[in-house]
Amino acid sequence: IVTSSLSSHSVELGEHRHYMHKEIFEQPQAVIDTLQGRITDSSVLVSAFGHRAESIFAEIENIQIIACGTSYHAGMVARYWFEDILGLPCSVEVASEFRYRHPVIRNKTLLVTISQSGETADTLAALREAKQQFPGIASLTICNAPESSLTRESNLVFLTHAGPEIGVASTKAFTTQLVALALLMTAIGQVQKRLTEQREKTIVHGLQKLPTLIQNALKHEETIKQIALSFADKTSALFLGRGTMFPIAMEGALKLKEISYIHAEAYPAGELKHGPLALIDEQIPVVAIAPKDELLEKLKSNLQEVKARGGQMIVFEDEGSCVSSDNDNFHVVKATTNVGRITAPITFNIPLQLLSYHVALIKGTDVDQPRNLAKSVTVE
Amino acid sequence: IVTSSLSSHSVELGEHRHYMHKEIFEQPQAVIDTLQGRITDSSVLVSAFGHRAESIFAEIENIQIIACGTSYHAGMVARYWFEDILGLPCSVEVASEFRYRHPVIRNKTLLVTISQSGETADTLAALREAKQQFPGIASLTICNAPESSLTRESNLVFLTHAGPEIGVASTKAFTTQLVALALLMTAIGQVQKRLTEQREKTIVHGLQKLPTLIQNALKHEETIKQIALSFADKTSALFLGRGTMFPIAMEGALKLKEISYIHAEAYPAGELKHGPLALIDEQIPVVAIAPKDELLEKLKSNLQEVKARGGQMIVFEDEGSCVSSDNDNFHVVKATTNVGRITAPITFNIPLQLLSYHVALIKGTDVDQPRNLAKSVTVE
Repeated sequence: IVTSSLSSHSVELGEHRHYMHKEIFEQPQAVIDTLQGRITDSSVLVSAFGHRAESIFAEIENIQIIACGTSYHAGMVARYWFEDILGLPCSVEVASEFRYRHPVIRNKTLLVTISQSGETADTLAALREAKQQFPGIASLTICNAPESSLTRESNLVFLTHAGPEIGVASTKAFTTQLVALALLMTAIGQVQKRLTEQREKTIVHGLQKLPTLIQNALKHEETIKQIALSFADKTSALFLGRGTMFPIAMEGALKLKEISYIHAEAYPAGELKHGPLALIDEQIPVVAIAPKDELLEKLKSNLQEVKARGGQMIVFEDEGSCVSSDNDNFHVVKATTNVGRITAPITFNIPLQLLSYHVALIKGTDVDQPRNLAKSVTVE
Repeated sequence: IVTSSLSSHSVELGEHRHYMHKEIFEQPQAVIDTLQGRITDSSVLVSAFGHRAESIFAEIENIQIIACGTSYHAGMVARYWFEDILGLPCSVEVASEFRYRHPVIRNKTLLVTISQSGETADTLAALREAKQQFPGIASLTICNAPESSLTRESNLVFLTHAGPEIGVASTKAFTTQLVALALLMTAIGQVQKRLTEQREKTIVHGLQKLPTLIQNALKHEETIKQIALSFADKTSALFLGRGTMFPIAMEGALKLKEISYIHAEAYPAGELKHGPLALIDEQIPVVAIAPKDELLEKLKSNLQEVKARGGQMIVFEDEGSCVSSDNDNFHVVKATTNVGRITAPITFNIPLQLLSYHVALIKGTDVDQPRNLAKSVTVE
């Protein structure tokens, strides 16, 4: 047991009605704090991951990410980055499945655990299981609690500096986990020379812009509050995305589920035709994340099918997407400017947090302490 | 366009009200037909996968499975088998994601596509994309249509002999895909000497018992019909499983979604505490698959949490599980005898098919032709 040395000030609500709301609005600062001392003007400091980071990163040929819940979604986003940008094979798995199924772990794998508390029971057990089975395996944890079990039992540690998160539904911890994973991907890319200096610079500059991008996304709160009204009488919702926006859709759906008790589920948009389309009618709102990227046209055609079935659509797009809304059932929110590959999923997550918060307010649920849930799942 | 040479007889309904019901009851025969000529008394005939199978299987070090919808769930079950039983690394991915995300494909990978029709647009495009990127890659398709695009464009072909499947919601095609994947796993294990002769014999004998196991599971129809009544007024449901039962839970949820339009979603039971538990109240029935295995005690403790929140529970168990029901909200169906690692997921899928069928009947939906869906998704 470690007694927290936080001053009471840092956990005061201030002008906010709920901790969740406060924590959503703390995200620009949380990102600044997480980047602080970890980057230069143009590159990532590999030593931010620990003094052995450089030698460990030089050796690894595979990444295995293990996490639960929201942290699992952060890992899923990173998988796209590791494979697409670095060409480094990456697997992501839910800890409670990984630990029991006798998975194959390859030689030269970096085992990455992600957990806000650093005490998540299944994640910790998965790390221990992997270390027992493969005594030499290199491990790294991304977590928000400096003196936690995961930090003590991992070779490398990266602390997200999100500050204390009181709301049970994770918001700023998730955002800073994504920042941490972007830095990890870039650091490994740098050490293994899988990234050009120019590419690294572009990524770092993108991350530096992130606090402003999040700040701007937060400005859409009033619009989102209006949209939230249409969820008041709904019991189900679907969230759609492609690529890195699929795990962001999963996280958006989980948030809505956790605090508003609406049965929200995410699908990679291409799977819609293979079953879930049967669900769509006027009663099930569909939320889609539609950045301007190479998947946009595919996504638009998926959305047409939803529209044709009378579903209510809420589309979050950027300034380049130009999804056209032609009726009252079809809301388009231009949530951000045109963002990059790394900053896009982090930025698009913000309006989804606000949506679930405002739906929960309307539903009158206990936002910070949703029924049946605990902040850290320290038992199996 | 290939004109079907099927006699009208083979697609007649006979005593069944719907094709789906007919196809569910054809499964013992479909399994017999799929095994026919592919096994001896004690081993799998590697040549059943094509004359080049032995040399290809000898070389491979990784499996990459690509599929959509129900076929994707079959692939997910097989992943547990490949890694746990053979120690051979296996990844499974939805085709619409795989094809666009620049995935890393390792050397010596066997690319396995699964599709009932052999014409699924995203799966076919993913195969073509992978072949273009890695010209030497070995490919195998598991499909139910002899002269389909996937069979023409793959190195190795394994035809499931499920016979024509008319119902849009796949049943016997899924079951025979699982049989095919079990044979594939065993064949690779044999060639690479990752299985002892004794283990192979045990697997083959288990598969031989499968038609009887399915037949016996089908006998629970009356009990399941009664349970289905309690879904009549429900709009949501959760399906839980661990290990290979997680993809079976996903398939059960998809079936219910497709034909009854109830929003059913599956979770690996260990993830319940990380969010979805907030959903649970008297309005959301929870279906769990609980075979007697090393995960049973963990699952039982997950079920206790659901019960404590007033959720209605339906548990499918085997004769060894002994999940005790102590109130009217808690139905336990002893769906099968104690089954093996390979036969268990195939057998437990049967009562879930019957459940979704009978819920759809009560709801009065169009069972064989659910709204918004097509049998083969030949467009993206």
